[in-house]
Amino acid sequence: MAAITYELIRKDETTGARAGVIHTPHGSFPTPIFMPVGTQATVKGVSPDELRELGAGIILSNTYHLFLRPGMELVREAGGLHRFMHWDGAILTDSGGFQVFSLGDLRKITEEGATFRSHIDGSKKFLSPEVSMEVQKALGSDIVMAFDECIPYPADHTYAKASTERTQRWLVRCRDAMADAEGQGLFGIVQGGMYRDLRAWHAAEVTALELPGYAIGGLSVGEPHELMEEILSYTVELLPANKPRYLMGVGTPDYLLTGVRHGIDMFDCVFPTRVARNGMAMTWTGRLVMKNAVHTHDHTVIEEGCGCYTCRNGYTRAYIRHLVRAEEIFGLRLLTLHNLYFLQEFMRRMRAAIIAGTFSAFYQDFMNHYHKK
Amino acid sequence: MAAITYELIRKDETTGARAGVIHTPHGSFPTPIFMPVGTQATVKGVSPDELRELGAGIILSNTYHLFLRPGMELVREAGGLHRFMHWDGAILTDSGGFQVFSLGDLRKITEEGATFRSHIDGSKKFLSPEVSMEVQKALGSDIVMAFDECIPYPADHTYAKASTERTQRWLVRCRDAMADAEGQGLFGIVQGGMYRDLRAWHAAEVTALELPGYAIGGLSVGEPHELMEEILSYTVELLPANKPRYLMGVGTPDYLLTGVRHGIDMFDCVFPTRVARNGMAMTWTGRLVMKNAVHTHDHTVIEEGCGCYTCRNGYTRAYIRHLVRAEEIFGLRLLTLHNLYFLQEFMRRMRAAIIAGTFSAFYQDFMNHYHKK
Repeated sequence: MAAITYELIRKDETTGARAGVIHTPHGSFPTPIFMPVGTQATVKGVSPDELRELGAGIILSNTYHLFLRPGMELVREAGGLHRFMHWDGAILTDSGGFQVFSLGDLRKITEEGATFRSHIDGSKKFLSPEVSMEVQKALGSDIVMAFDECIPYPADHTYAKASTERTQRWLVRCRDAMADAEGQGLFGIVQGGMYRDLRAWHAAEVTALELPGYAIGGLSVGEPHELMEEILSYTVELLPANKPRYLMGVGTPDYLLTGVRHGIDMFDCVFPTRVARNGMAMTWTGRLVMKNAVHTHDHTVIEEGCGCYTCRNGYTRAYIRHLVRAEEIFGLRLLTLHNLYFLQEFMRRMRAAIIAGTFSAFYQDFMNHYHKK
Repeated sequence: MAAITYELIRKDETTGARAGVIHTPHGSFPTPIFMPVGTQATVKGVSPDELRELGAGIILSNTYHLFLRPGMELVREAGGLHRFMHWDGAILTDSGGFQVFSLGDLRKITEEGATFRSHIDGSKKFLSPEVSMEVQKALGSDIVMAFDECIPYPADHTYAKASTERTQRWLVRCRDAMADAEGQGLFGIVQGGMYRDLRAWHAAEVTALELPGYAIGGLSVGEPHELMEEILSYTVELLPANKPRYLMGVGTPDYLLTGVRHGIDMFDCVFPTRVARNGMAMTWTGRLVMKNAVHTHDHTVIEEGCGCYTCRNGYTRAYIRHLVRAEEIFGLRLLTLHNLYFLQEFMRRMRAAIIAGTFSAFYQDFMNHYHKK
């Protein structure tokens, strides 16, 4: 049996939204789901117990960072990433491709792979489909992402086509490198930039490999929301219904709603943890900047009725504002716990609405009350 | 009945060490005890739940910092410091004197009090015995410390005498200002620098006020250990046996042992939390610098048999080293929890030895195995 399987619970009748369960060697989790990001073998400031308690069933960790530090040998020696970081839920690892391509002048790409300078000590490193798979095998993640290029926006058709074709050749090499892996499932990533013909060609090529899951890459990279939604809706229909679908790098409520509405099951983003460290709280009506003077004398919680550690225990806006201004790390922790819980709860309510057949009403209701800032 | 009372459980027969219980409006705690420091209404990186879980019965918070930010009005409005920071155990607040005197050129001292510039926004501030008491009343701490000068080392006799006499005049003003306070106990602080005659004079003056507890200030300020021990042993004998005795600013195992051996009940220090943030772990055999290469492949816990969150859950030296090198705040949290637990456990074992009549053996055994660095 495949390491990763998807079970459909209910599909919405008027949109593409669907509720399901994904089964992995480290447990099953309900979908749609948001994956907190633990870049360096830790979700910044949060313990594995706390992640479990707020309802996370799967987290994402970054191959690029762990490849450079502490290195794959050490994590392998520790018994894999789950044991190293004490997380017994599921783990998805990215391939390192995104970070390496982001290095700009510091990297050189060939058909073989990418040579680059470590951002930590300047040493020369090499990452390729085979190396990325080797690292992800050492990490022992449940879901392994293919090594690809996330095409920047804007990119002309010639560039996007050449990049997508190389990504596909790399995917075949990833598949071959993972042939002997047990207990891990390789997800292919559909690229193609903002071009329908390239998306169509690549979706056909990727799905022909019959992998345990598929991601849509290269969206939410700076393009207008309408264009994102157009390419997303076009691409997702090209993916099989019996496999998980993952939209990479998306974590704001409006984009999550859009993704779910079109049939996406999995999401990840540093957004909730990063904005927490910048003193921002996510709520059902929009974001709160905790440093603002309006919270000075506010002895109520971030959001009434919220079940997160922070709100449930009565930590007030006034106290959190004080901690943020005083640069106390407990403030970042309280906000991180709140934001991660908020997104888990947001996904749970979307899922409940799909199952109850009320997803469209949920969507409208949320959009009516949520203020983007 | 007084807000703060001391109950003697057992006195060691060969040393001055004693085991007791201190009762406060926010619970009782065993002595000798170490108080974690929560400068800005939070023990850096640690939740109140975690403090309770590792065995802290009382914490210290700083009047100077809270006076400047968020200010006493806000804490009063929040219902006091206990409610503001969600700590339902006992709280001791210092007077702010130590921090103000440390400002050097930025402060001006008169008989009335101290005028100084805020380190946060440069605004002009004034702190005096009366203002310090007003702030500590607003904070609602269980134990209120008198406003004094901690005499620097070295200081000549003329300076030390004048300073000690002024501290005594300030103490009387503190006592008068606290006359109407309920549920709070004022501790007097014996100063006198390194001069026996001044210590004797001041101890007599301070204890004549019959306060609920007494502190010994102005030690561990840079003087040799032998001189500290000499002045400590001389001074502590001048304090009544039926009141708590508090040695300020001491938190390393060897100094704690010395203090307890001479009959001290209470200690505080930023040491365990500060060194944790510098990547250092405290153990029964000395300190570990977690960044050191020796820990790279060490997949064992900081200290075998340790009951702290970090060790009990199996977080390894290799993982903590990775987190410290990657500057991940979860590493600081794991080390802070370990160090605070270590000191609580250290005090518990000293207390158990006193009660069992084996304190001298405990002392020798610890000194034989502990390596100062």
